[in-house]
Parts: sequence; structure tokens; C-alpha cells
Amino acid sequence: MKKLSTILSILILLFSINTLIAQPVEIDRVEPENWWIGFEESDLQLLIYGEDIQSAIPSVDYPGVTIERVTLVDNPNYQFVTLRIHDKAEPGTVELSFQRDGDTTTIPYELKERSSDTNRNQGFDSTDLIYLLMPDRFANGDPGNDNIEGMLEGVDRSNPNARHGGDIQGIIDNLNYIKDLGMTAVWFTPILENDMPPEYGAYHGYAATDMYRVDRRFGSNEKYLELIDKAHDMDLKVIMDMIHNHVGTEHWFVKDQPTSDWVHDIEEKGTTNFRAATVMDPYASDFDYSAMVQGWFVVDMPDIDQRNELVANYLIQNTLWWIEYSGIDGIRMDTHPYPYKEYMAEWSRRVLEEFPDFNMVGEAWMSNPPSTAYWQTGFPSSDGYESYLPSVTDFPLYDAIAAGLNEDESWDTGIYRLYDVLSQDFLFPDPNLNVIFPGNHDLDRIFSVVGEDYGKFKITLSFVLTTRGIPQLYYGDEILMTGGGPDGLKRKDFPGGWEEDPIDGFTEEGREELVEETGFPVVDAHEFLTRAANWRQNQDVIHSGELTHFIPQNNVYVYFRHNDDKTVMVVLNANEETQELDLARFSELLDGTSSAYDVVSDQTVQIGEVLEVSGMDAMILELE
Amino acid sequence: MKKLSTILSILILLFSINTLIAQPVEIDRVEPENWWIGFEESDLQLLIYGEDIQSAIPSVDYPGVTIERVTLVDNPNYQFVTLRIHDKAEPGTVELSFQRDGDTTTIPYELKERSSDTNRNQGFDSTDLIYLLMPDRFANGDPGNDNIEGMLEGVDRSNPNARHGGDIQGIIDNLNYIKDLGMTAVWFTPILENDMPPEYGAYHGYAATDMYRVDRRFGSNEKYLELIDKAHDMDLKVIMDMIHNHVGTEHWFVKDQPTSDWVHDIEEKGTTNFRAATVMDPYASDFDYSAMVQGWFVVDMPDIDQRNELVANYLIQNTLWWIEYSGIDGIRMDTHPYPYKEYMAEWSRRVLEEFPDFNMVGEAWMSNPPSTAYWQTGFPSSDGYESYLPSVTDFPLYDAIAAGLNEDESWDTGIYRLYDVLSQDFLFPDPNLNVIFPGNHDLDRIFSVVGEDYGKFKITLSFVLTTRGIPQLYYGDEILMTGGGPDGLKRKDFPGGWEEDPIDGFTEEGREELVEETGFPVVDAHEFLTRAANWRQNQDVIHSGELTHFIPQNNVYVYFRHNDDKTVMVVLNANEETQELDLARFSELLDGTSSAYDVVSDQTVQIGEVLEVSGMDAMILELE
Repeated sequence: MKKLSTILSILILLFSINTLIAQPVEIDRVEPENWWIGFEESDLQLLIYGEDIQSAIPSVDYPGVTIERVTLVDNPNYQFVTLRIHDKAEPGTVELSFQRDGDTTTIPYELKERSSDTNRNQGFDSTDLIYLLMPDRFANGDPGNDNIEGMLEGVDRSNPNARHGGDIQGIIDNLNYIKDLGMTAVWFTPILENDMPPEYGAYHGYAATDMYRVDRRFGSNEKYLELIDKAHDMDLKVIMDMIHNHVGTEHWFVKDQPTSDWVHDIEEKGTTNFRAATVMDPYASDFDYSAMVQGWFVVDMPDIDQRNELVANYLIQNTLWWIEYSGIDGIRMDTHPYPYKEYMAEWSRRVLEEFPDFNMVGEAWMSNPPSTAYWQTGFPSSDGYESYLPSVTDFPLYDAIAAGLNEDESWDTGIYRLYDVLSQDFLFPDPNLNVIFPGNHDLDRIFSVVGEDYGKFKITLSFVLTTRGIPQLYYGDEILMTGGGPDGLKRKDFPGGWEEDPIDGFTEEGREELVEETGFPVVDAHEFLTRAANWRQNQDVIHSGELTHFIPQNNVYVYFRHNDDKTVMVVLNANEETQELDLARFSELLDGTSSAYDVVSDQTVQIGEVLEVSGMDAMILELE
Repeated sequence: MKKLSTILSILILLFSINTLIAQPVEIDRVEPENWWIGFEESDLQLLIYGEDIQSAIPSVDYPGVTIERVTLVDNPNYQFVTLRIHDKAEPGTVELSFQRDGDTTTIPYELKERSSDTNRNQGFDSTDLIYLLMPDRFANGDPGNDNIEGMLEGVDRSNPNARHGGDIQGIIDNLNYIKDLGMTAVWFTPILENDMPPEYGAYHGYAATDMYRVDRRFGSNEKYLELIDKAHDMDLKVIMDMIHNHVGTEHWFVKDQPTSDWVHDIEEKGTTNFRAATVMDPYASDFDYSAMVQGWFVVDMPDIDQRNELVANYLIQNTLWWIEYSGIDGIRMDTHPYPYKEYMAEWSRRVLEEFPDFNMVGEAWMSNPPSTAYWQTGFPSSDGYESYLPSVTDFPLYDAIAAGLNEDESWDTGIYRLYDVLSQDFLFPDPNLNVIFPGNHDLDRIFSVVGEDYGKFKITLSFVLTTRGIPQLYYGDEILMTGGGPDGLKRKDFPGGWEEDPIDGFTEEGREELVEETGFPVVDAHEFLTRAANWRQNQDVIHSGELTHFIPQNNVYVYFRHNDDKTVMVVLNANEETQELDLARFSELLDGTSSAYDVVSDQTVQIGEVLEVSGMDAMILELE
């Protein structure tokens, strides 16, 4: 027995050693999944994920590619391999091997050639008109992906805060509609995987669980490419929504963190205080500043710590990957002031280093012009901060619209608020790169904000389409959609986006039915917006002409856009009464004009000594 | 008869010619009346005023002094002689001669040595505490000058908008009072001659009729010097109030303008639109901008056109003259955004070129931080404007006090407004040079603004005395004077400033009587302010220490001033209820302190885990 037992013991030991030696190297993820030749930055940080991958030795055999550095972290399931791609490297498949005790696993890693197509990565600017939509709420082009086996949440249209089933195919199906409206760019809320529990309601896409993969309920990475290609073929740009402040609790790297500092500890930090002022305030306490930057946005969204260099590289490369992979023309960065601002600056700098013609707009939801301007590249803050970010969201201008059209005029209220905000533009290095908007997915619907007053709606839209900046509208504004309060009601489904919808707002017939149903001038609104937006597309004078405005009187705001070739006069009468404007005040720009085409009413108007403007109405006068 | 008549004719003719030839050169004014050796600028523009002075030929005979240029203008009663004072020129009396057809008039013109006294022209900064008073409303030290023969307006104390008789002697008599209060500087509204009709009510001094002469109802140039010397002997600085935007309609050079462009034509320009934003606004129309800058402030105040170089030189030299002549330590420039801003920049530049340690504060009455910061030297405006002005009035901070203490707290209201304004300080090149105030002669009395709530008053004063900036109080705040509405009621007489006054607020007994009369805690207020102001005088930590503040919670605002030596904690509880502050939040600055001296209550306070703060009250805690 003793002999047998000894033999058995030896066998068991040998088997154990053998197991240890021969355990095959398993690799679950390599991110980025591929890369390209020809970036300015020659180092590429690969995240290698697999059980106990830490103990495997990486090697590479490819001309012009070397391993510069291997970084191991607390968690044995990670390895960060930094490849250096030398100038002489050619496109091809790199063999990346991992060896452990005699066992070798080799991964083919593609280094592609960068695209040279000219209708990719175009950037965006004031020549554009952006249509913001939420994929889940716009159109359900593929009901087959509404419920995906193995994903945590399915579709429930009866719940305004649940997933409704809209998808990328729905956007593709309606690109013509968007194009006809006169839009030149589409921004939609995030489409990356958000495999979060139904209680959370991640239909909006701001709680990523995988940053390299389109959510299957929206489509696939390939479907996303198809959309972008089709949009580009139609001269529509695509702006991708990104978030580097947080991910979802179900994100794979949160559930198995490389080190404990990939996300801030919510036990210690709690949720953010939302006081973005602390990021700029020269007097902010450490207590308040860290609560702002390190606190979680909500308890379902772990707050990423971008001070960790591995994290920062991971995020920046993720951005570069999407830009080159998809051909997107711009990025809208969510919650821009919430990550460490030093990181956000480096992110912007790196993106523009690789894609100089690209553009990004940061969601800087601040209440005043200084705190907004702070985030625009070139802003000379006394703290020396340089954001490298070209575009910022102009919330102060939105606030001025929302307040100014809903109050009586006085020395500093009423439509004067629009004038007031713009008069502070000496703060902005380039205010014409501000993204301006009458609403978005976080705000009550503009038609609701103005009390369902169609005159105020026309004033608002006329303003946004003709003042300085990059205008952005929100899906459904054009058919006078209403809603507000809880997020879900700011994001109602576009009627007709679902096969079962009784009315199809995408069609003229449907819009006529909407008039019946709502009593709102939906057909007129859609026509007005289509006319004004298409008109705007070819107006250099609006894109880049000078702006000259006049102090509002009697709640009437008059301004001009003008260049050497053309002058456009805009009259916004926020007074309920018809106003007779004495035109002598504007002689420096009217210059003897005798008639004009009014884009709003689609009529020719005579320009004499006095201009009559209907109560609560707008005129966009192309002077002849 | 014919012969006689011929002879007579010849005689008459000869007499006439003789008269013409021999008419003596009459000179009524030479301004500046003297000058000094040793300024950086070597050219001195003399305004020579006298009937038909234009036809006289000037000459000068003095070593190192030459006539560089003579400028004649439309009006024959003026001549502008530019002297060049070369480096080798010594102090002495220059003989300036004017010759016309054989007749010569010689004026002795003094070139003095500049003073080397060190307690003159000291500038002012955050080490100071400024007491603003109106000479007409503070104290009548010399009833003998109340009514001056030949001047247009006498005294009428029964009319709040008329002249009341206060004067420079009254200030001199109460310098001890001001000093004991803990002030370090006195700014009083203008004292130059305002010989305007009684209908206008120029007791405030902003409608000069002679820019080189103290109003005789206030005293004399000599009396002004006496005041300044006495103030300097007591370590009190003096700040002079100036106005370059306008003068009074009765100004001598307005009544006999050198050329028609010394002041703007009110027939053409009307009154100003008061829209100071147009001066900074990149989109301002010419129409609005010129209405702002060229319109008159009121119809009794001709608006000076500083584009005329003779005018600009006249004004700048007038400033330099008063600084060197009187020894004043600083200037408060009225209506700073209303003159041409290019001129204001040149004015500031020239003053600081000659007096580098001097300081000027511009009254930039703007509603938001950007438009305020725009006027501070070093502000990097996108239009390239450089003001050369060190200090600006901080109206946004005042507005925050006035609004924040009179409303409920919310996300962005209540005492949070103080935090909000300060958090935008990244705009200011040097916010510690902002002049901050709880009131002035154009605003309702602070005790009235806070609804006669003594707790709110203490909060306000505690804030102004301990936050960043140069604090300025308004005479009578310390005895809880009230008033508002019409200007005259914001500027009531200081009780006891007139011999006939029944109560003398300058004395403790009088303040006790005021308690009886008003029911307000006047004695306590005076003691509190005296204690806090005197304490402030020696606190480097308040003058130049760092400021760190915390986001208000429950309408309680907590901030610290701190340097290597000391930490001061300020707690402003704008909540009606007693608050228990968990001090853990402030541990980054409390650093284990166990007790503190509270300047407000004059008591020692224990610092444990929790600090109890009475409802609507302030604490200024000098940590031990």
C-alpha cells in the first residue's frame, strides 16, 4: 500500500506540476482590437485581459514593432503591453505571443492603413446644423433586436424611463428625412453597450459596459459603420457622443478592476456635489473640489480616475480608435467638467494632434459665460488652464432664451437677455464655435418651455439659426413635440418611428394628422424649419459674417449678419403687440435697401422708413 | 470845418490804430497754474485764456525750457502753448511773455520741485479700509461758508436734494472719529467747484465748473491741503473723486468752448443710453455705442469729447497736478466706462508712469464679473483692450449681497450668491485689488437694503471686512443710518455734523440717544465695526492671505483666510435658525485647532467637533 500510495502521490504531484506548466494562456480581450500605422504617437498601450495573464511573457515579431514596456498591476488578469510602432512599420498582421512555461498563445494583431477618404473625420463648425436624437427614442428600424438573449434589459414602451427599442437601423431609415429637413450633421446619444439592469434605465447610453462595442439592441459596430457611410454619402456628418467621466456599474473592467484606482471608491467619495464651479474657482476647498471630481454622477455610474496613466491612455486610445475606425466627424463629450480637467486637456490635445481637422464639443453645463468660456481653447484664465477644446455648449445662451421669452421686458429682462449674453462674447476665444441650442435631451422640450406659443417658438428657432455659433436642434422640435419634467418625458418617441404608431410624423400626411390631434401648427412648423434650415446651408453670411446687434427696445431685438456680399436683418418681436420699427436707427447697415426676402414668412417685404413686425413673431430678412 | 474834421478823422484813426496796437494782453487763466520739474513727460500743455489771446505771440526765457508748439483754435480767447521742460531745467519761476504789437505781458510761471515726503501719494490696496463720505452731508465745520456771495446756490437743509452745508472743515474736525473707527483711508465725493443753479442740486460735486479749484462752500484749495496733511499725520490716506466724463453746464470752458468739439453736442447726441455693455460688446452697433459714449449723462452735465488731444492733455495734466499738488493717495474715477475707453487707458497709463505707487479705482458699474474684470489692467480681452487701471468697483459682489441676504436659499440663491461671484475670480488679473462695498452714495443704505435686520448687517460687514479685496464703507453705516429711493435720502446728514443737531452720532452719548430714537442697536453696531476694523488693520492674513471657501450649506457660508502664520475662519449664517456645523468638513484648514477668538462677539470660542452658530449671525474666528 505504501508503494502504491507513494506512486499515486508522485503521479498527483506530476499532474499538478504539469497542470501548472501546461495551463494554456487564455486571452479574453485585447483592446484596442486593432490599430493603424501612421499616428503621431508611436506608442500603443494594449490592454490584455485573461485569467492569470500576468504570468505570461509577451513577445512580438514584426518589422518595425517592438515591445517598449510591460506594465503589470495588482490584478493578475491584466497585462498592459506597450508596443512601439516605428516609422518604418508597414500595415499588416503582427504576431503577438504570450508564453508561459512552454505554452505559447499567439494573437494576430492588425495594424491597418489609415483611411484616406476625404469625407471622413470632417469636423464641424458654424456651417453646420446639428440634429440631436436619441437612438432609443427616434425610430425602431429593426424590431428583431429589441430584446437580446442574455442582455439585462428588454423593451417596455409603456414605461417612459425604460428602453423603447429605437436603433441604428431606425436612424438609417430616416436619414433622408433628416437631410430634407436641412440638417448637415447628426449627433445621437451614445450607442456603446450599456448592459445595465432594467431598474437603472440605461436606454440613454451614458452607462457604458463596453467601450469598444455598439450595444446589440442598437445594432452592431458594423451597423454603425453602415450608418456613417450612408450619412457621408448624403453629405451628412456624424457626431459621436462620448463619456470619459463614468461608465456603468456593469462595465467589465469595473467588475474586475485592474487596480483599485480605476474608478473612485464610492464608499469614500459618495456622489458628486455637481458644483462644477469648484474646478475653476481659485478659492475652492479640496473638500469641495474632490467631491465634485471624484464623486460619482449617480450610484450606477462608477467615476473613472483618469489620473491613473493606464486609464488615461486607455480612454484616449479608445477615442482615437473610434475616430479612425468609424470615420465620425466630431465628438460631443459628456459632462466635460467632471473628469480631471488636466486629463480632458490631454485628451483634446491628443485627438487634435492626430486629427487636426476634427472638432469636439464639451458639454460644459455652466450657468454663466465665464465658466463656459473657461473650457474653450485659448481662454486666458488666470490659473493658466488650457483646455485644447474647440467647442463648448452654450448653456448661458439657452438659459437666456428660456428666461427671456417667458417674462416681461425691463432694463435687463425679456429678450434683452439674448443681447446680454452675446455682449459678453469678448470672453470667448471663438464664440462662433459655441454650440447653441433651443433644447436637448436633458431639458424640457422647447415648445413646452415657451408655453406652446408658436410665435415664441419661431422667435427661438429664428434666433438659433441666425446668430453666431453652431446651431443644434433636438429631434421632434420640428413637429412641435412637447414634454418635460422626468427625463423620460423629455425624450418621447418620435411618432411614426415604430411600426405600430398610429401617426407617422415623418410624413406630410402624418404631420397633418398631428395638427388634428394636437391643435399645434405642426405642418407650418415643419415647413418653416425646413425652409430656414435649407436656406441657412448656403449662407456664408450666417456661417461667418459679422454680427452687429442693437439694444432691444419694446422687447424687439434686431441684429444683422453681414459680409462684403450680403446683409441679413433679423427682427425678433417678443412683444405681443405689432411693432412699427423706425428703420433710421439701423441705417449703418440698411444702406438704402428697399426690399428683402423674409425666410420666416417666405414673402418679399418692402423696406421703407418703418417696418411693421407682427406681435410675437420673427423675420429673417435677406436684404436685396 | 473840413480841415478840422479831417484832423479829427486822422486823430480818431490814429487813436484807433493806437488802441489796436497798444491794447494790453489780458490773461484770465493759465492752466495748470504751475508745474513741477522731474516728470517723465517733458511736454507741458498750457491753456492760456484771455480776450483775443490768440493774436499774442508767446515767448519764454528760462534755462532748459522752450516752447515746443503753439496751438491756436477757433475761439480767439484761447491759446495752447506747449512747453518742453528739458532735463537740465531747475525749479524756479519761468517768465512767460505774450507780445502783441509792441505790448508785452509777462506771467511768472512756477516750476516747483516735486515733494519727496514719503507719506504722500501712497496708493491704496487690500491693507486699507476706506470710509466714503459726502462732504456736504457729513459735517458742517464752517457755517461761514454755507452761502457764498456770487455763487448760484446756498444752503437749504429742508430739501434732501439741496446743499446742506457740510464742508472740508467738517471732515478735518472728525478725522479722529474716522481714525478711531479703524479706517485707514477716506474717499469723499468731489470737492471741486460746482457753481451750478440750485434747480440742479450739485451738492454732490459731480458737475465741475472749475477743475482747478475747490468749491468755496467746501473750503479752498489750501483747506483741502490742510485736510490731507492732517490725515497723513494720522496715518489716514485720502482718495480723490474725479470725473472725466462730464462737467457742469456752468463750466467756464463750456460757456466759451475753445472749439465746438470740447463737449459732445447734446442736440445731436442726446443723453446716454447707459448701456455700458456696448463699450465691450464685439457686436455693438455704432448707433448704440456712440449713444453710450457720446450722450450726456444728464442734461446738466456736458459730455466731454476726449478724442480731442487738447482735451485729453488738459484732463491728464489736471490729474497729475492734483496728485502732486495735494499729496492724495489715490483716485476714484467716476463713470469709468462712459468716456472713450482709449482715453481712459491713456489717462491711467500716464498717471502710473508718473506715480508708480499710486492707485486708481474706476467706477465700473457693471452687472456681471466679465464686464467688471474687463476694466482691470491685465484682463486678456479678445479685443485687445488694456485699461492700465489697477482697481475696479465690484458691483457684482455688491449685487450678490443685496440679493443673497434677501431671499431664500436654493441651488443658486441665498448666501450662495457670494460664493458664486467669487468663484468667477479666475477672470480678474488681481481680484484682491477690487474695491468691495456694502453700499455707497448711489445705493440705498445697507441697513435699509437688509430690511433693518441687524444680523444681516453683521453678516454683510463681516464679509466685506474679511473676504478678498479692498473694503469700502459708507459714512453712517456704523450707526445704522437708513434711507433709500431718491438720491438725497441715500445721503442723509450725519447726525451731529451740524451744531443745531439734537443728537451727536460722533459721540458715545449721542449713539445711546440714537438707540432710544431708532430702536436700532447703534451702540453695538458702532462697537462691532470699530473692533472689527481695528482688528483688520494688522491682519496680514486678511490683507494678503489665501482665501479658501466652502460651498454654502443650509445658507451658511464658511471660508478661511490663511497664510503661514495664521488662519481665520469666517462663518456667515444667513439661516434664521441656529446651525450646528460639523467641523470635519473643514479639517484641511482647522488642523486640530481647539479654540478661537471671535472678533464679532469679542469672545473666545471652543472649537470641537461641532460649532454652534446663532441664527442670522456672523463669526470671525481667529484660530489659535
